[in-house]
Amino acid sequence: MPRIPVEVDTPDVMVDLDVLERNIERMAAALRAKGLRLRPHAKTHKMPEIAARQLAAGAVGLTVATIGEAEVFAEHGATDLFIAYPLWIGPRQAERLRRLATTARIAIGTDSVEAAETAGRHLGDAAGGIEVLVEIDSGHHRSGVSPARAVEVAGAAARAGLRVAGVFTFPGHGYAPQMPAKAAAQEEQALGEAAEALTAAGFEVTRVSGGSTPTAELTGTSAITEARPGVYVFGDAQQWELGRCAVEDIALTVAATVVSRHEGDGATPRRVVVDAGSKVLGGDRPAWATGFGRLIDHPEARITALSEHHATVVWPADGDLPALGERLRVIPNHVCVAVNLVDDVAVVRDGELVDRWRVAARGRNA
Amino acid sequence: MPRIPVEVDTPDVMVDLDVLERNIERMAAALRAKGLRLRPHAKTHKMPEIAARQLAAGAVGLTVATIGEAEVFAEHGATDLFIAYPLWIGPRQAERLRRLATTARIAIGTDSVEAAETAGRHLGDAAGGIEVLVEIDSGHHRSGVSPARAVEVAGAAARAGLRVAGVFTFPGHGYAPQMPAKAAAQEEQALGEAAEALTAAGFEVTRVSGGSTPTAELTGTSAITEARPGVYVFGDAQQWELGRCAVEDIALTVAATVVSRHEGDGATPRRVVVDAGSKVLGGDRPAWATGFGRLIDHPEARITALSEHHATVVWPADGDLPALGERLRVIPNHVCVAVNLVDDVAVVRDGELVDRWRVAARGRNA
Repeated sequence: MPRIPVEVDTPDVMVDLDVLERNIERMAAALRAKGLRLRPHAKTHKMPEIAARQLAAGAVGLTVATIGEAEVFAEHGATDLFIAYPLWIGPRQAERLRRLATTARIAIGTDSVEAAETAGRHLGDAAGGIEVLVEIDSGHHRSGVSPARAVEVAGAAARAGLRVAGVFTFPGHGYAPQMPAKAAAQEEQALGEAAEALTAAGFEVTRVSGGSTPTAELTGTSAITEARPGVYVFGDAQQWELGRCAVEDIALTVAATVVSRHEGDGATPRRVVVDAGSKVLGGDRPAWATGFGRLIDHPEARITALSEHHATVVWPADGDLPALGERLRVIPNHVCVAVNLVDDVAVVRDGELVDRWRVAARGRNA
Repeated sequence: MPRIPVEVDTPDVMVDLDVLERNIERMAAALRAKGLRLRPHAKTHKMPEIAARQLAAGAVGLTVATIGEAEVFAEHGATDLFIAYPLWIGPRQAERLRRLATTARIAIGTDSVEAAETAGRHLGDAAGGIEVLVEIDSGHHRSGVSPARAVEVAGAAARAGLRVAGVFTFPGHGYAPQMPAKAAAQEEQALGEAAEALTAAGFEVTRVSGGSTPTAELTGTSAITEARPGVYVFGDAQQWELGRCAVEDIALTVAATVVSRHEGDGATPRRVVVDAGSKVLGGDRPAWATGFGRLIDHPEARITALSEHHATVVWPADGDLPALGERLRVIPNHVCVAVNLVDDVAVVRDGELVDRWRVAARGRNA
């Protein structure tokens, strides 16, 4: 069976439809069984065709990272969107949120008194139509406040006229070896404390939102009401190396061609170079990763260097080097940044090209 | 003077037109003074407006990385294009090259007998209209053959009907501290040996092409005829930290807003989070870099972590943390990947927005 359709020129991003649909169903079933609502993060795929499948499988709405992403998914019919980000809202952002709220339920994040006050001032009458979730730092130490400060921020948001709905966190420190279970426990602890404090202060807490792909299936359910995994739809080399997905769960690969081939000698490595570089794979490379991505059909190979249009793939001495012109499938380290590099993707089923989908929210950073 | 025009929403990529034009003139003058032809690499900017300025300043033509980039610049009037890449040419690639060659002088790279033979077979009658430069490995150990093998590859290309014009190399190992001078010396040595071998074998060598931004002004002139720097038009945090550009030479920054602010405590760092993450800055982070980019107006700050929409900026204890909502200018580590993330850029002169330019060749990876 050809793994890369003949119509595909390299480099190109391919999505395996069967694997994608299986991943969507599996996460939906896992969270349903736990009694958690699923609000998948659409920044991973940025494609309405995938959002529609997630919603059909039971997702309660979508998570996005930016107002621009929210606009794209709203244009494609999404009616319940959480911009899980501590937005700084000026007049133009307020106008865009106001427009979004005419067709969709909109929630935003905030983690400071100043941001909440500024949002309220610019949203004016529209503030009461926007839900706010206070961002909690559960150990990632990026944005978010400690649970002890949740009431202070929520109070400012309420005074500014916004509708406080609950709290959220991103346990991003779970993206490392041995960390998912610990991060999930910290997430539950921090969200539980924050939600309890808000309730004690008289807020009606209806949304307690956590989750990420490494932690979603470990997320506690004592306080948390919803999870926001994103990567699970595709999987990637990071999730594989973290043990959070199996290689057969990886739905997205980059088709690449061997353009240079070297048996190597004492001074130079035994390697091939393929035509997928950082401009299609993305440059993410955590310290614990074995390289800049993986080859799905050659787990023994290592991508030791990445240029913009070259991946240097070092081969073990006992395996045959691929031939020049051979086409290989590369798994990006971090799929969210890979998808954001291309305007569309090749949709493949059983090795046949069945469609191309546009990455409709690509580049919508603002 | 406002450094970020009020019309700009964050995150957004801004190009300072005065600095850009100064950089273009300076590199042109430096290579002219050395007697080297300048063939700037357009993969850095991907914008016809910048290519036009480079050509007006005396560039002999453009370098590109892919057939797709060549097509975009040819559509915008470029008539001399070198695809400095060891292309693997199938029927569809051959057809595209054939079309390109009707309006422009086209050169391609090759580093193997197999690639040259395949190119000749698919190009057929058009092969004689395409120049070939044999890629030489001058120490980067990515693609390219040793100088000793140049004649073997050139011979295959000639037998396949292609027009052998010379040799090229990319001294990519010059992108590291203390390496530019060494890489430039190795480049001159390797290209000189390869060119001499081709000449001795009866080839007419008219093009000996080297160079990169860190090495271009160090490139030797005993054998080399042209240099292909790219990054110099903008500069970036890597070049700044390598000492290959001054901070006042940096023409491209990403406008960002402080969305989260934390004085820190024993357990968490003193930091702000800005809304420019890896989806606008790119994720490149060489081991020797001090972080994931720099703040142009705050050299004391360090970007210690990058998510897709967040940069975590750690601040020294003795400096005032920027306020929430403050707008800062971030220098990407590697400008080529940052530009490739946006559909257009804000063109700024004296702090005023004067234009927007489309990144016309964005995403043209194939």
